[in-house]
Amino acid sequence: MSEATLQLDTWIRERAALVDEALERLLPADLKAFGGVADMMRYAMFPGGKRFRPVLTIAAAEALGHDPRRVMPAACAFEMVHGFSLVHDDLPCMDDDAERRGKPSCHVRFGEAEALLAGDGLVIEAFRVAAQNASVPGVDPRNALRVVEELAAASGWEGMVGGQMLDIQGMREERVAADRVVAIHRAKTGALIRGSVRAGAILCDATPAQLEALTGYAERLGLVFQITDDLLDWGEEQESVSYPAVYGVEESRRLAQQATDESQRLLASFGVAAEPLRELARYLMRRDR
Amino acid sequence: MSEATLQLDTWIRERAALVDEALERLLPADLKAFGGVADMMRYAMFPGGKRFRPVLTIAAAEALGHDPRRVMPAACAFEMVHGFSLVHDDLPCMDDDAERRGKPSCHVRFGEAEALLAGDGLVIEAFRVAAQNASVPGVDPRNALRVVEELAAASGWEGMVGGQMLDIQGMREERVAADRVVAIHRAKTGALIRGSVRAGAILCDATPAQLEALTGYAERLGLVFQITDDLLDWGEEQESVSYPAVYGVEESRRLAQQATDESQRLLASFGVAAEPLRELARYLMRRDR
Repeated sequence: MSEATLQLDTWIRERAALVDEALERLLPADLKAFGGVADMMRYAMFPGGKRFRPVLTIAAAEALGHDPRRVMPAACAFEMVHGFSLVHDDLPCMDDDAERRGKPSCHVRFGEAEALLAGDGLVIEAFRVAAQNASVPGVDPRNALRVVEELAAASGWEGMVGGQMLDIQGMREERVAADRVVAIHRAKTGALIRGSVRAGAILCDATPAQLEALTGYAERLGLVFQITDDLLDWGEEQESVSYPAVYGVEESRRLAQQATDESQRLLASFGVAAEPLRELARYLMRRDR
Repeated sequence: MSEATLQLDTWIRERAALVDEALERLLPADLKAFGGVADMMRYAMFPGGKRFRPVLTIAAAEALGHDPRRVMPAACAFEMVHGFSLVHDDLPCMDDDAERRGKPSCHVRFGEAEALLAGDGLVIEAFRVAAQNASVPGVDPRNALRVVEELAAASGWEGMVGGQMLDIQGMREERVAADRVVAIHRAKTGALIRGSVRAGAILCDATPAQLEALTGYAERLGLVFQITDDLLDWGEEQESVSYPAVYGVEESRRLAQQATDESQRLLASFGVAAEPLRELARYLMRRDR
């Protein structure tokens, strides 16, 4: 592991810890009321994964010279939408996964109706939290509203949810065309990654040119994330909806490298404060898990 | 049917038609993209029921001297959350209902995973639409943000979703205590009715006193709605989570009449423009379907 990687690891870990603290405060702690639904929502959010999406929101804010606190509610909102999607993804009618992050998935632990409702509670709470970003000093309420719309666009029918719909249909087929795989991934995972970065930029008063550059960066980053994710899974399970299935391993690697290179060029006009964003793309490119 | 009832029927029908038109414009019409998810969302919203919640938002706006257009996105957002809740309620792991409004329920028509995702898409779209209320001329963006928070509070873990969680737990028991039945109904149906009225008031710059009076009115209205709903169902199915089950038929009727009377007193300081709100409570009290 290179020195650069080590520094990024620390940088990420510190931001992820801030996200954990904020989620701890933002998520309802009244565990017994309403049939324990808040407890189930917390079960789905802790312990977390890499907190990749909120860390991206923070990295975008820092690239524009702002403190993580400026964007923390929005960052947490994106993570809560991610958490909601995992709860519903694990349900028997979807992927039917009994485990998530080393513990029983939500429906195995609490029951199917309960997990459905806990997921519903999480996605709704995410929007409340996103709206609360207007209370952060210095944030223009119009920008908080834009972030609510970004969150909806990224997670809704033409974003994550639409991608999941395409994915469940694709998984039922043996062969899926390359352009469909690209479209599925762009919607299913790309849109939320793109939205996380844009939310940070919008709340930090990015200029149109800055927002455009950061959006382009985020789209490349989403691609690198997805291709390398598919390549890591490829050894275990050869899924039809994946880059190596339609492009082969070598061409997939080349596409990821190309997107990484583009991501660096798109950040050329940003200063040293954008170094974590740059390094995040390079880090994904070389990851081995 | 009295003359007053007839006039209210017309008044409601005209507002419901405006809501239908607005939903038609607001809901994604790109039916084939993303695996048809938008088509499934529309299937869940058309044809609608009474459009009771958005009509309440409009009635609150009119009581404060404003045009329905002022609150239309928020009104539609509340209806979309209602539609989402019906799709998820009908799923096999919840009520397992095969029919809704005289046609196959969403999961029967499209499949279970598809209905889950269509419901998710609807609730997310509701928040996008609620945020768009800031684009209506004259609306303070801060109030549009407050409405996003109202929508989340009304529909989330301490509102509708929390009430559903309590309800599925209560339905598994033979006897449920009276205070639990009250709490379940207040969260499951009361919160969204309350939020619909409050959203209209907030977007029309209600004074704190006006907002308080309209909130009190909406809480009584929700009670009348639920008790009369339970009484109408009581002849067919004697559910444990219902007013007649815990209070008996006569006392339930008395409680509904009391709430109706209170709802009228709470609107005393409003002029003739609040007549639809007043009449809506009396109408629910005497309804026979």
